[in-house]
Amino acid sequence: MNQVDIRLYAILGPGDTRGRDLAQCAAAAVAGGATVIQYRDKQSEGRDLVANARAIKRAIAGSGASLLINDRIDVALAAEADGVHLGQNDIAPEDARRLLGPDAIIGLTLKMTDHARALEGQPIDYSCIGGVFATTSKDNPDPPVGLDGLARIEAIARTALPGAPVGAIAGIGLREIPAVIGAGADGVAVISAIFGHDDIEKAARILRDAIDRALAARGA
Amino acid sequence: MNQVDIRLYAILGPGDTRGRDLAQCAAAAVAGGATVIQYRDKQSEGRDLVANARAIKRAIAGSGASLLINDRIDVALAAEADGVHLGQNDIAPEDARRLLGPDAIIGLTLKMTDHARALEGQPIDYSCIGGVFATTSKDNPDPPVGLDGLARIEAIARTALPGAPVGAIAGIGLREIPAVIGAGADGVAVISAIFGHDDIEKAARILRDAIDRALAARGA
Repeated sequence: MNQVDIRLYAILGPGDTRGRDLAQCAAAAVAGGATVIQYRDKQSEGRDLVANARAIKRAIAGSGASLLINDRIDVALAAEADGVHLGQNDIAPEDARRLLGPDAIIGLTLKMTDHARALEGQPIDYSCIGGVFATTSKDNPDPPVGLDGLARIEAIARTALPGAPVGAIAGIGLREIPAVIGAGADGVAVISAIFGHDDIEKAARILRDAIDRALAARGA
Repeated sequence: MNQVDIRLYAILGPGDTRGRDLAQCAAAAVAGGATVIQYRDKQSEGRDLVANARAIKRAIAGSGASLLINDRIDVALAAEADGVHLGQNDIAPEDARRLLGPDAIIGLTLKMTDHARALEGQPIDYSCIGGVFATTSKDNPDPPVGLDGLARIEAIARTALPGAPVGAIAGIGLREIPAVIGAGADGVAVISAIFGHDDIEKAARILRDAIDRALAARGA
């Protein structure tokens, strides 16, 4: 299993920047303490996806933060990103591992306890529990799982895949961080809580401080 | 340069089957003489793309026809297809070649003379001139290039990349084949001219016969 620090996991695409440059947004987030940039872009075509991924990679080089590509393994390979993030309907983790090799980071979204149970034996380095609270950032037909659902899915994920960090996503901002980390998450994935702000670096720093405090309070 | 027979190039996706099974449609087209199946699917998610590509591959195995995947290099790799077909906005041919290796077939759509000139030195095995006639199969904002445009782009493509076959696509059926092959195309790409018929195998056979006759008449 590859190590990845998912404490402050920033998801970024052309629809999230309020007109600003993708690579500059990524650099600011990382400067403020984001540990992962996930480039998620369902609009752009392949050539732009690769160009944007390469620009983000250059912008965060040397920071220690990881660059993951949502869904498109070919884009991750072409841009030499650190890995991919997969949904349940994306290319299967075993195929992704075969294409990306042993050192790539592969993450998976979990939306229900069945997904967490199915982690067992999969070539996954971290998972992220989706749909924790209601959000406007993504069409999500399922009702939020809430803190109870988060804790339940997280416990199953830890048993199924010991040692792999478990993050949480959807509707999480500064206010929710203590409860989300308290419920067991190792990190928090955000979009608008970082990129919805004028000062991206400052927004990231405030979130990161809150996450680190909450993890310390939990004794993690 | 890898050899590929593009004489009857059948493009197939879930929207083209009139509710029939993708793999069975591909098998019928190949039985009638299709030399390439291009799996083009802009709707399905990654896991289904790989499953469908694998099913088509099994269905046409041993026929000698090539399976190419539109756009998604990761799907081609996961399903071990013969190669990919790329548009001008898809991942660049040089990146595709690096990811797919020397033996994969890589094709590129050309829509204007500039695209044909730019073929020089590219790792491309065939090209296909798009937008020859008006079509209902694909949104195409540009006006058709017609037979004159086809002949003009084709001549430039042959000079830029000698030895690579040049196909033609858009609005081509049985009636147009003599003129399209007469204008210089080495093959014809079709969707509805094959898959719009109840008897796919028969439709493919009639087209293939017409293509072979037109190529013989040209002395190709």
